[in-house]
Order: sequence, then structure tokens, then C-alpha cells
Amino acid sequence: MALNRTAEHGYRTIEFAYLRPERFNLDRLAKLAQSLDVEIGVTMGLPVDKDISSEDTAAVSAGRQMLADAVRAVRDIGGNKLGGILYSAHTKYNRQPTKKGWDNSVAAIAATADIAKDASVDLVLEIVNRFETNLLNTTAQGLKFISETGSDHVRLHLDTFHMNIEEANPAAAIRLAGDKIGYFHIGESNRGYLGDGVINFDLIFDALLDIDYKRDIVFESFSTTVVDEGLSLACAIWRDTWTENDPLAAHAKRYIELKYQDAKRRRVTNARP
Amino acid sequence: MALNRTAEHGYRTIEFAYLRPERFNLDRLAKLAQSLDVEIGVTMGLPVDKDISSEDTAAVSAGRQMLADAVRAVRDIGGNKLGGILYSAHTKYNRQPTKKGWDNSVAAIAATADIAKDASVDLVLEIVNRFETNLLNTTAQGLKFISETGSDHVRLHLDTFHMNIEEANPAAAIRLAGDKIGYFHIGESNRGYLGDGVINFDLIFDALLDIDYKRDIVFESFSTTVVDEGLSLACAIWRDTWTENDPLAAHAKRYIELKYQDAKRRRVTNARP
Amino acid sequence: MALNRTAEHGYRTIEFAYLRPERFNLDRLAKLAQSLDVEIGVTMGLPVDKDISSEDTAAVSAGRQMLADAVRAVRDIGGNKLGGILYSAHTKYNRQPTKKGWDNSVAAIAATADIAKDASVDLVLEIVNRFETNLLNTTAQGLKFISETGSDHVRLHLDTFHMNIEEANPAAAIRLAGDKIGYFHIGESNRGYLGDGVINFDLIFDALLDIDYKRDIVFESFSTTVVDEGLSLACAIWRDTWTENDPLAAHAKRYIELKYQDAKRRRVTNARP
Amino acid sequence: MALNRTAEHGYRTIEFAYLRPERFNLDRLAKLAQSLDVEIGVTMGLPVDKDISSEDTAAVSAGRQMLADAVRAVRDIGGNKLGGILYSAHTKYNRQPTKKGWDNSVAAIAATADIAKDASVDLVLEIVNRFETNLLNTTAQGLKFISETGSDHVRLHLDTFHMNIEEANPAAAIRLAGDKIGYFHIGESNRGYLGDGVINFDLIFDALLDIDYKRDIVFESFSTTVVDEGLSLACAIWRDTWTENDPLAAHAKRYIELKYQDAKRRRVTNARP
Repeated sequence: MALNRTAEHGYRTIEFAYLRPERFNLDRLAKLAQSLDVEIGVTMGLPVDKDISSEDTAAVSAGRQMLADAVRAVRDIGGNKLGGILYSAHTKYNRQPTKKGWDNSVAAIAATADIAKDASVDLVLEIVNRFETNLLNTTAQGLKFISETGSDHVRLHLDTFHMNIEEANPAAAIRLAGDKIGYFHIGESNRGYLGDGVINFDLIFDALLDIDYKRDIVFESFSTTVVDEGLSLACAIWRDTWTENDPLAAHAKRYIELKYQDAKRRRVTNARP
Repeated sequence: MALNRTAEHGYRTIEFAYLRPERFNLDRLAKLAQSLDVEIGVTMGLPVDKDISSEDTAAVSAGRQMLADAVRAVRDIGGNKLGGILYSAHTKYNRQPTKKGWDNSVAAIAATADIAKDASVDLVLEIVNRFETNLLNTTAQGLKFISETGSDHVRLHLDTFHMNIEEANPAAAIRLAGDKIGYFHIGESNRGYLGDGVINFDLIFDALLDIDYKRDIVFESFSTTVVDEGLSLACAIWRDTWTENDPLAAHAKRYIELKYQDAKRRRVTNARP
Repeated sequence: MALNRTAEHGYRTIEFAYLRPERFNLDRLAKLAQSLDVEIGVTMGLPVDKDISSEDTAAVSAGRQMLADAVRAVRDIGGNKLGGILYSAHTKYNRQPTKKGWDNSVAAIAATADIAKDASVDLVLEIVNRFETNLLNTTAQGLKFISETGSDHVRLHLDTFHMNIEEANPAAAIRLAGDKIGYFHIGESNRGYLGDGVINFDLIFDALLDIDYKRDIVFESFSTTVVDEGLSLACAIWRDTWTENDPLAAHAKRYIELKYQDAKRRRVTNARP
Repeated sequence: MALNRTAEHGYRTIEFAYLRPERFNLDRLAKLAQSLDVEIGVTMGLPVDKDISSEDTAAVSAGRQMLADAVRAVRDIGGNKLGGILYSAHTKYNRQPTKKGWDNSVAAIAATADIAKDASVDLVLEIVNRFETNLLNTTAQGLKFISETGSDHVRLHLDTFHMNIEEANPAAAIRLAGDKIGYFHIGESNRGYLGDGVINFDLIFDALLDIDYKRDIVFESFSTTVVDEGLSLACAIWRDTWTENDPLAAHAKRYIELKYQDAKRRRVTNARP
């Protein structure tokens, strides 16, 4: 049903957090998405026992296997991208990252990128705030990581909620990353309604136009009434700033369209003699 | 030595995170502060096994004892305020808050407030982001909590770093709290140098003037090279945006003074016919 | 026709700049507005030879007459407010304002206020930038002026375009004026499309909600292709940032509604425990 | 004396508005500046009867002569740049600009550029708001104008006060102009103390660093107590937001240094993995 509503609201991409073959009929999902002309992306975070950024060989190995399986699952349901916290566990760490853990993660993502390339699935790494990973909190760290993989098939997945906590200058970070941005989440500073927070989205959209960004822009918000319990806990959702899905989605679409349109017009006005 | 440097930079308040009688000679500390005319405040967060917001009677009881001890320790070293995450553990929770836990916390803080009042120690509750408590993430929640304690001796400790994540409108939250703000932390969005982030401090200082705030304004920043390891981990400090204490402190003082002075002048200019 | 289009776009107030009995059939206008349930407001600026802020008795006297006539004309077409630069000429002055001119203007506006009160026409004084008057450039000046008239029937007409040039803090100016604001213009910093400039409208709408403003909010933009030539020259409109009326008006309505709605939601979210 | 104070405050450039041989001993001025190691720049605006953007041949011819004389005067006192409203009169126009007037101005500036190049005097055109010229109100217009002169010796003089009124996006305008910016004025939105207005100077300094701007940054403010009467009237200075020169200059220097230093640090922090 989420898929039908998504298409009704005029969105062209839907994103699933994890794929649960035990809960969803993946075949049916794939067919429905095709019939509605909605693209499917999948995001996930590694569990602690499959953390490819750990120094434990067994965990790294289990993580690599999980990533390979995920790439194939995305391909099989007709999806075209895999994103999220693929390079470490999705958890509040209680230890500093290590050089060896970083190297393990780089190697694992490089290997996963080859598999993803063959499967025509884009691989995007989500840069998240310090409370959800200890490895990649900023765009600059993400760019260094990608460069060390040596692969041209890894891009960044940026998210304004996380950037608001970590980046010294979110718009400049977008311009720094340029074509290396493969996926973009629009989220408010408190993860609620757009406009219910402190993020200056004009600067964000100006920067996305500066780099001629053409890939997905996806709205993200959380509420315990709708979101999976595990994910809600990992993301520390204790308050519900909203309870109804449909008005939230309709508002987000209107908000993003207005801001994006305004940024485009501002750009033209600014450059017109 | 931190005390001497603090006075040299012209700050008038120093804040200690926890008091470690095993590491510091508290008597000597008290005398030094007096001789330098620097006020001492102490902030802390409860450990998980002393969480007064839990449903476990033993934990609640141990937490109440810890708070009572802390009030007396602050008094004994000549300090005048106790703040921080006093109402819950300082941790990334993995469960939703409960009504019973909230009530336990309200009762414990009410009792602590009586002790603190007798000891002439101000009690301020730090509102922190969702990754550091699950109970009080916003000013509005804090005001409700205070109101339920029935005490006039509990105030809020607000911090711009946390407000940047949680408040729909930080300046409006300051105006909403008004005289109930007892302590104020200036911290940048990435906890680094002021100016190295996204917080609009003009709006913050305008609001502090709107409510005629006269109590402490304290600069807070973190770096693993300086800060206690346990606190660094609880606060998820993985990157060092700075390494040298002195230039950071000198800059923060210059920054805050300029912004505060500018806000005062702007207020006068704005109202002058 | 402007009236019909205004109603179609969902606006509830139309504002005329001057009334030209020689060009419009005022009787027909009045009837059409009534039938469409659109309120009529009139704004104007005094010509130099009728400047009530001059030291020349003849000019002051002619200006008082013009204002009295204008109040009656507004009443006769069924309008309910007269605004604009009523207290001086609408011109780029080449001299400093004088105490005597200020006093002349205060006295003339006090007299006009009595006439307007009898006619049930609201009188609002538009605070404009330094290039369009030399007398009232800021809200604080306007409040002093109103106070000197001794009348309770004079209010301010604020305009974000002018505030962006003159006010040290536009939102604080709105809060300072409070109930003395009788009319409000939303205009972008370059007088073009909303969003095509630098004004932070979130702060404006937050402030209007802070004072519980319930009176008119009117969008204003200029283009030589649409606006009266005399007014275009007085306002120095040399570039056309737009040429088509209808998309501009439709966009402004969407923009204002979204911003206003967002400010209302932000206010609720911010205060909800 | 202004020169001595300028050097004391640590400024390295002083700017004179017009040169009045009848009031200043230009020879002495030149020697003093050299001895203090302060660079001299001169800004001016054409009078109406020497308007090179008019269609009147006599005015255009008189304007060309005035510009040629000004270039030589700047050279003779040891100055290195001539800026301001050189391409039109400095006035509130009461007519639209014309194609023929634009062409006259382009030709005159092209000729002046050749003279200036020979004299080693930089030529910079100040983009000002609609109330001070009708010809070049935006950076984009200025770039088109420069391109039509065919000269590589003409650059733009941008000013944040004017940009705040005219540019859809001041920071983007700076990036658009890039190396074509030859001179930069920092002025607040109400032309008073920096911080007493609405301009977001963080975005301005970020943009100046983006284009690696290395030329002059000059603070500009106005007050009738200090500034030449003719210039005060042309700039419509009716209110004095300050009366004392020295604290204003000291504050501006502190403000600009802090903002510039912060922008540089933010840039480094943002790009550091």
C-alpha cells in the first residue's frame, strides 16, 4: 500500500529500509513498482556482529557476505540502488574508530562495489551523524574513503539531518562532493515536518543546482507510529512530531517543489543581466 | 591549571564535568577558585545503574543518593550550581521512555531540589539531544517536567548544540522558557570552534536579551585530546576539530563578546526612533 | 479585470495605488468588489507640492486637503483603509527632515485620523526606505510619530522590502510594534518573486504570529509592464524580474500560504511537550 | 588626520570620495599616505550634467573629460584605483535607461580604461541600488557591461549594502563575477555598524574565499556628522546610527577580521577528512 500512496502523491522513488523476505512478497513488490513506474531503492545499516569496520575477522567476513546478498536482493526485486550505513554498524559506538577497521571497511566496500557494478545496482554510502556511526560523519571523510576504494562505482548518500550536525558548511560540502553524490535525503533538523526546524534549505537547493545534481532527492522523516521499531530505536525517535503519513508526505512534496523551483528561478534571476 | 588559564582568558565561571575526589584535591580547588574569583559549576549525567527515570526501584534509589551526594560535594568545594543530565542516565537509550519512569524522575528531582535549596546550590536540568537521553529533548518537555516537580528551585540548562538538533525554533524556545533558564551553554553544531558550523548565534543572543537573561553563559566544545575519555565516548567525539585549548578558548571569548555586544547594539538601534 | 483575477487567485483584499476618478468608474468598482467579496484598500504617497512635512504653509494645507479627500473617496467606493506615504511626499528628498516639518506632519495626520475615524476608514502609515521619504524609515520612528498624534486611530503599515533596508532587526521591529501594525506588505528584497531575494520570511511570519497579527497581509511586487509609470519611476523600477501577472500572483499565494502554515506548525511543535 | 587614524586602526587602504583640490593639499596627502604605507583609492559618481549614459552629446563629452581628469588626479597623488558610479550619474533617476545611453556609457568607459591602464590606475565600476543609478544595479548587468567594453582593465566594485537590495543571491553573484571583482565594500543593510542589520556576512566571506579574492575589502558606513553633505544627500542619510568615528572603525575591523578568520577556518574544517 505504501507503494500505491507514494505514486499517488507524485513521488517517483520509494526507499525501503531493509528487505524482509519473511514479511514482504518481493516478487509482488517488484511487479507493483514496475506497474506504477516507481523506482525502488534500499537502504540499510550493518548489525554489530557483521561490522566490516571492526578488527574482528569473523564480523568483517559476515558483513561482506551480507552486503553481497543485499546487492543481489535489490537486483532481484528490480531495484537500482543500495544505500545506508554499509561501511560500519548502525549503532552508537562506544569506542574510537581504528586504522585497521577503516582499512577493512575500504576493502569490503571495494569488493561490494564490483558485485554491485555487475548487478547494475548503484552503491551509495550514507554519511551519518556521530551517534549512528563512528567512521564516516562528514562528506570530506566520505570522499577520502571512496578514493581509497579505487572504485568509480561508489558514491555518497548525503542527508541534511546528519549534515546539520556534522558539516561545518553543508552547502560547501555539497559543492565539494559534486558528482560524487549519488543519493540525497531531505530531512529536517528534528526529523519532523520540513519547516519545523533550523535547516536553511535555500542554501541546500542552491548548492544542488550549483553541482547540477540530477539524481534522486528523497524526503525522510520518522515517527514511531509508522517506522519499524528497530530502526526507530537506532535513530532515537522518542517524540512523535507527526502521526499521519499522508499530510506529511503531501506537505513534503509541496515544500520541496516550491523550494526547488524557487532555487531554479533565483539562479536564473541572479545571472540575468 | 585549567582554573588559572580560565581566569587568564577572562572567563568568570568554570564548569567541571563530574568531580573525581580520587583525582582532584577538592579542598585545593575550592581555595584556588576563590582566590581567582572564578565561580564553580558542576555538570554530570547519571550512570545507567543509577537512572532515576527507570522503573527499577534499586536504580532510582541509587540515583537519588548520588544526586544528594553531588549537591553536597558542590557545596563543599564552594560551587553554586549542579547541572547536566540529572533526570536520567547519560546514554543512548534502546527503549522508549515510560510514564512510570517519568514520574520516578520527577519525584527524585523534586526531592533533590529541596536538598539543593538548603545547600544554596542551584539545580539546572540540561536538555540534551535524543542520542544522549530519551526523556528531556526539548525546552517544552523540560518546562512541563519542572512544573510537575512543584519546586521553584529547578531551572533549565539549555545548550545550543542540542537545541540545533531538537528545537523547532531555538530562539522561540528561549523566549518560551524565559526566567526558567538557569544556565546556558554556547556550543557549535559540530561541537567545534564557534563559527565552524550552522548555528545562527545572532538569533540566540537576540532571544537571550529578549528575556533579559543575566545568568551564566558558558562555552562548551569537545576534543578527545583534552576531554575525559568516558565523556568523549558518551558524547560520540570521533573527530578532533581542534587540538589546542588556548586558541580555542581565546577565540570563543572574542566571538561571544562580539556577538553579545552586537546583539545589544542591534536591540538599541532597532528601538531608537 | 484585476479585481476578477484577484478573486480567482483566492486573495481576499485588493489594494489600489491612488484612485483615478478620470480613469476608473469608481461606482462600478465598488459594486464589483462587493459582489466578489474582496476588500478594497487604497495606498498613496503625497506629491511634493502637497507635502505635509514641509515648512511651507501652502503645501501643508494642500496636503491636508488631499488627505481629507482621499479618506472620503475610499469610503465612497466601499474601501476600508487608506495607507501609504501619507505623512510626507513620496520622493527621493534632497534635504534633511526638520523639526518643524515633523510637527506639521504630526498635526496633519492627527486631523486626518479624526476624519478617517468618522468615515470608518483605517489610517495606516507606510514606513518606507530612505530613498522614498526622509521622515519615517523605521518602525521605531513610526511608533514615536503615532504617539505624538495622540490618536488611537493611526497604525503602521510595514513592508518587508523597506524593512530589509532600514530595520536593524525586522522581526524584533514587528514585535516592538505589536498591535500598532495595521497593514502588512510582503515584498521581496528586489521587489520580484518571493524567494528571489535575501529576506528571511520564516522570521517575519514567526514574529507576526508572536504578536497575534490578524489584519491584512498583502503581497507587493513591481514590474514596468504592469505598474503605473509614475509609481514605477518613484520606486525606481528599471529591471523587470517578471512580466506575467498571473504566475507571479499564483506563486506568491502558494509561497505565503506555505510559509504561514509552516510558521504556525513550527510554533505548535516548539511549545508542545 | 583621517589618514593617521586609519593607519592606527590597522587598515591598509583608505578611500576618498572625490578629490577636492580646493580643499586638500594633494601633494601632502600623497606623501603622508606613502609614509604610513596606506594605499589610496578614490571613488566618485558622475554629476547629472556629465552623465555618460545620457543621450546628450555634450553631457557625454563632459563626462569623458571628467573621467580622464580623475584618472590622472588619482595617479598624481599616488593612488592605484578609481571606482564608484563612473558609468552614469549618481542620482535617483526619473527615467528609464535607454539602449543609446548604455552604448554611450560602454564606449566612454572603454576609452577611460585605456587611459587608466597607461596610468597604472585600476578602474572599478560600482554596482549600486536602483535609487542611486538606473544603469547597473546587479553583478550580472555589470559583467555584461564590462564584456561590451572589450577591455581587460575594467572590473566590478561590489558593495554588500547594494547587493542586499538588488541581488537575488549575493553569494552566488560573487561566485558568478569571480576574478572580475576588483574592489569590495563591506556595508551593513542600514549603512550603520556591522551587525546592526540583516546581511549574512558568513555567506559573503565564504563566497569571497570560494573565488580566492585577494584584492581590497573596505568597510563603508555613513553618518551626517562625518560624511560630506552632498554625498550624504545622494545616499539619503537621514538618521545617524552612530556619531563617533573611532569606535565604529575599531568595531568594523574586529568584526571583519573575526568573520574572515572564521570563514577561512570553516573552509578548512569542511574539507578536512
